[in-house]
Amino acid sequence: MKRAVVLLSGGLDSSTVAAVASSDGYEIFALTIDYNQRHRIEIESAKRVVKSIGAIQHVILPLNLRLFGGSSLTDDWEVTKNVPVDKIGNSIPTSYVPARNIIFLSVAFAYAETIQAEKIYIGVSAIDYSGYPDCRPEFLTAFENMAKLATKVGNEGGKISIVAPLVHLDKTAAIKLGLKLGVDYSLTHTCYDPADDGLACGVCESCLLRLQAFKNAGIKDPIKYA
Amino acid sequence: MKRAVVLLSGGLDSSTVAAVASSDGYEIFALTIDYNQRHRIEIESAKRVVKSIGAIQHVILPLNLRLFGGSSLTDDWEVTKNVPVDKIGNSIPTSYVPARNIIFLSVAFAYAETIQAEKIYIGVSAIDYSGYPDCRPEFLTAFENMAKLATKVGNEGGKISIVAPLVHLDKTAAIKLGLKLGVDYSLTHTCYDPADDGLACGVCESCLLRLQAFKNAGIKDPIKYA
Repeated sequence: MKRAVVLLSGGLDSSTVAAVASSDGYEIFALTIDYNQRHRIEIESAKRVVKSIGAIQHVILPLNLRLFGGSSLTDDWEVTKNVPVDKIGNSIPTSYVPARNIIFLSVAFAYAETIQAEKIYIGVSAIDYSGYPDCRPEFLTAFENMAKLATKVGNEGGKISIVAPLVHLDKTAAIKLGLKLGVDYSLTHTCYDPADDGLACGVCESCLLRLQAFKNAGIKDPIKYA
Repeated sequence: MKRAVVLLSGGLDSSTVAAVASSDGYEIFALTIDYNQRHRIEIESAKRVVKSIGAIQHVILPLNLRLFGGSSLTDDWEVTKNVPVDKIGNSIPTSYVPARNIIFLSVAFAYAETIQAEKIYIGVSAIDYSGYPDCRPEFLTAFENMAKLATKVGNEGGKISIVAPLVHLDKTAAIKLGLKLGVDYSLTHTCYDPADDGLACGVCESCLLRLQAFKNAGIKDPIKYA
């Protein structure tokens, strides 16, 4: 059976993508990066999703991006501490984490090359992407080409491809796709600013996008909100 | 004063590159990745080098690539345990660490973007590169272009450039350059298979390349060997 690495945050998008990889016939090697994000509770969701899809392996890699800061998602500094609320726009928000998807894909390539996977699944969308530049297809293509030059597998004529099944879908379409594939969205976590007990806030940028998408899909979001 | 991130392993090449960055007039922000390599003793060398060049900041980022394995430098598995000895050749050796320089540059971009550095210095050489594909100039160019697409700074018309001062130099030329810039090579560490007390073995691929280079430069290597 062929193998794929799935970058799994525990959120709605990556959980949907894991189901796509599974329905594409791949053995799933899930990779979760614990970047010391303030919403680390999503890692618990990732574990639940891994169980529900029956992955072969789940690597949780600590990679403390808080050492650098530069984002409202990782910064301890008061000045950028507030996660942006109600800011669904076109500019790059403060929740942008410098080079996050470059780092995540890099690590995914290391994992994929080691286990001889031929695909890396990632849940980015160029539609509902909150203005993050590292969610666009031209970035993914550039990354794939760069990685072909840098890896042993690439230099031996092989290739590890990046698959982004949601890249041209909005979040509503992603939810509809996931429901068709049997994704249990009650297991997922989306909020950037959860309460201490893990409950989603319902007012951060990320919650607003999620709630709007479920509303548009005509379905009740199965998670609880504070 | 302008800022540069220097990827500093504590080895001969990266220590030379740090001196180049300094002589190019940059404030130095040193970045060392603790990837749980078996020769982690090199991190102590990195700390000594940072002191000697007077860097502004030194971030040591734990990033445990041993979780994946796939290399004689990180693997615990018996089958790949032996670091290659006396194998200076053209094929990709077992000490190749999957996607290592992709990962290191990714993290360097995150750091550089956060501190608003304009350059990233890296000590790769396409001449004495042990057959590693991620040490060639075409890889560095592809990475730079990919990162321009993925980062906020790139999307705002700026650019973070990768500088590889040794890319067209062999190790002998690197040593001559470093000596001209006042690098104290007694602080550096090169061995892939050091003894428990940190002494270099003198027989691994990495030691052989170093010893040969000092010999060619007509200088005695100032470090001790077991």
